[in-house]
Amino acid sequence: MPAEIIDGKAFAADLRGKVAGHVARLKADHGITPGLAVVLVGEDPASQVYVRNKGRQTVEAGMASFEHKLPADVPADELYALIERLNADPKVHGILCQFPVPDHLSESEIVARIDPAKDVDGLHILNIGRLASGQDAMAPCTPLGCLMLLRDHLGPLSGMNAVVIGRSNLVGKPMAQLLLGDSCTVTIAHSRTRDIEEVVRRADIVVAAVGRPEMVTGDWIKPGATVIDVGINRIDAPERGAGKTRLVGDCQFESCAQVAGAITPVPGGVGPMTIACLLANTVTACCRAHGLLEPEGITA
Amino acid sequence: MPAEIIDGKAFAADLRGKVAGHVARLKADHGITPGLAVVLVGEDPASQVYVRNKGRQTVEAGMASFEHKLPADVPADELYALIERLNADPKVHGILCQFPVPDHLSESEIVARIDPAKDVDGLHILNIGRLASGQDAMAPCTPLGCLMLLRDHLGPLSGMNAVVIGRSNLVGKPMAQLLLGDSCTVTIAHSRTRDIEEVVRRADIVVAAVGRPEMVTGDWIKPGATVIDVGINRIDAPERGAGKTRLVGDCQFESCAQVAGAITPVPGGVGPMTIACLLANTVTACCRAHGLLEPEGITA
Repeated sequence: MPAEIIDGKAFAADLRGKVAGHVARLKADHGITPGLAVVLVGEDPASQVYVRNKGRQTVEAGMASFEHKLPADVPADELYALIERLNADPKVHGILCQFPVPDHLSESEIVARIDPAKDVDGLHILNIGRLASGQDAMAPCTPLGCLMLLRDHLGPLSGMNAVVIGRSNLVGKPMAQLLLGDSCTVTIAHSRTRDIEEVVRRADIVVAAVGRPEMVTGDWIKPGATVIDVGINRIDAPERGAGKTRLVGDCQFESCAQVAGAITPVPGGVGPMTIACLLANTVTACCRAHGLLEPEGITA
Repeated sequence: MPAEIIDGKAFAADLRGKVAGHVARLKADHGITPGLAVVLVGEDPASQVYVRNKGRQTVEAGMASFEHKLPADVPADELYALIERLNADPKVHGILCQFPVPDHLSESEIVARIDPAKDVDGLHILNIGRLASGQDAMAPCTPLGCLMLLRDHLGPLSGMNAVVIGRSNLVGKPMAQLLLGDSCTVTIAHSRTRDIEEVVRRADIVVAAVGRPEMVTGDWIKPGATVIDVGINRIDAPERGAGKTRLVGDCQFESCAQVAGAITPVPGGVGPMTIACLLANTVTACCRAHGLLEPEGITA
C-alpha cells in the first residue's frame, strides 16, 4: 500500500493563514504589528532568494518586514551595531541573520549578539538550553515544522518510537528534544550507529536529517511508519538532459513510500514549513514581548 | 556468569587523587589554588552532611573551600548579593548552592545568578545549552561521573547502543547528551515508553535514573551489558528489624548482576562519583579562568 503523501506546501500555507489570523487579532485587539527583521550580508544569489521569500511571506501575513542589506565586506562591528539597534527596537520582535555569511564574520558571534527573546531562528545558546531543559524556548524552525507535520498527521505522539537520523545542532539535536517533549521514546542515530537499518526499522516516526542523498531505503522502514525527510540534496539527473540536476531527500522516496504509512516528499515536504515556522516564531516572540498569551497551535 | 561490580568508591578515590595531582601542579607551576564556594541556606541535616563532605574532600584535594551558611529565612536579595560577591571573587572558581532551599527561594533564580563559568554543578541554562550543542560546558556532576565510569570500564563508547531511563534535567537529559558526545546511539526511555523492557534489552549501556526502587530487573538486561544505576531509594527493610530501612537503586541488583557484564552497586557506585566530579569541575573551571590547558581525563 503506497504511503500517504504529507503535503508540506499545503500545510505551510494553512499555517501561514493561522499566523495571519493571529496577526490580525494582535492588530485589532492590541494595536500591535509583529515585525521581523532580516539581515543579509553580501550578494549570495541563493540567500537573496531566501530573504526575498521571507520578506514577501512576512508581509503577506500582515506583519512588518525589515530588510537590512549590508555589503559583503561590512566590518563585524557595524553588523553588531545593527543587531544592537534591532535588539532595542520595539517594532522588531524577531531578528535573523541569513547564513552563510562571508568568512571574516563568525556565525556563532552573530547569533550570540541577538536578543534571545528575538532569536526566531532558535540558534542562541540560551534557546538551545531552554529547549534542552523543557522550558519555553524559541525552537529552530525546521525541526519545529517537522513536529507540526507529525502532530497534524499522527495526533498525540506520546509513547511512539521516534528515530532521528543525524545529530546536527541545526536539526537532529533540537528535533530529538522536541520529540522528547512530546513524550516520544527518542533514539538519535548517526554516522557511528551500528546496524542503522535495524535501528530505523523499529521507528514509528523517522526523521532523516543527514544530508546524504537517498541514504534511507524502503527496507529500513517499518510498515506504516511516518517518514519525515529533512534532506534537500541536489544530484545529477542526466536522464533530464546533459548537465541537469534534481532535488532528492535523505530518503529514497519511491521505495520508502511503498512501505511507510506517510512520507514527506522532497521538494514540497519539510522545506515550505521552515519560513512558515519563522513567521509563527515571530508572532510567538511578539506575544511574549507584550506579555500576551501565546497563540495556540503555532509553538512547540 | 555474575557481573563485574564497578567500584565507584574506589574510582572516585582515584579521581580525587588525579584532581589533587592537578591541584598540586597548578600551585607549583602557576601559584594558583583552585577554590570552591558552597552556599548552604538553613539547617537541613542531610544538606549539612553533604556540605561538610564536600568541604572536607575539597580541602583533602588541596583546594580552597569557602563555606557560606545563611539562615533559613535569609532574604533572596542577600543570597543574590553573596552570589554576586562570589562571582567577582578571583579566589573562587566554583560556586554551588546546596539544594533544596527553603520555599521562599527559587532554585532556578539562584542558578541563573551564578556565573556560568563558575557553575560547577552544570545547572545554568548556558551550560545546558553548551552541552546540548556540543560546546565546552560544565557538565552536571552525576552524569559526568557515570560517563567516567563507563569510559573506564568500556574504553571508547563510539557506536554502542545506550539507553538512558529517565528524562530529568538533572540526570537523564544531560546523560543522553554526554553519551551522544561520545558517539553512542542514544535512546531516552521514560514513563511513556512502550515495551520498555524490550527497549532496555537492546542496550549495551543502561543508565537508570528514574527514582523507582528496583524497577529494572535482570530480564530487562542484555547479557553482558554495562548497567549504571543512578537511583538511590530508601525502602523499608523489616528483615533488618522493625522500622529499619535500606538503600536500593533503580535496578534490582541481584537479578541484573546475573545477566549484566558489569554493574554499579547502590550504595558505592555512582554516588561517590558526584563529589569527585564536583572537584574535577572546579579544577576545570580554574584552568579555564586562567586560560590554562584543561587537565586530561577529568572532563567530558
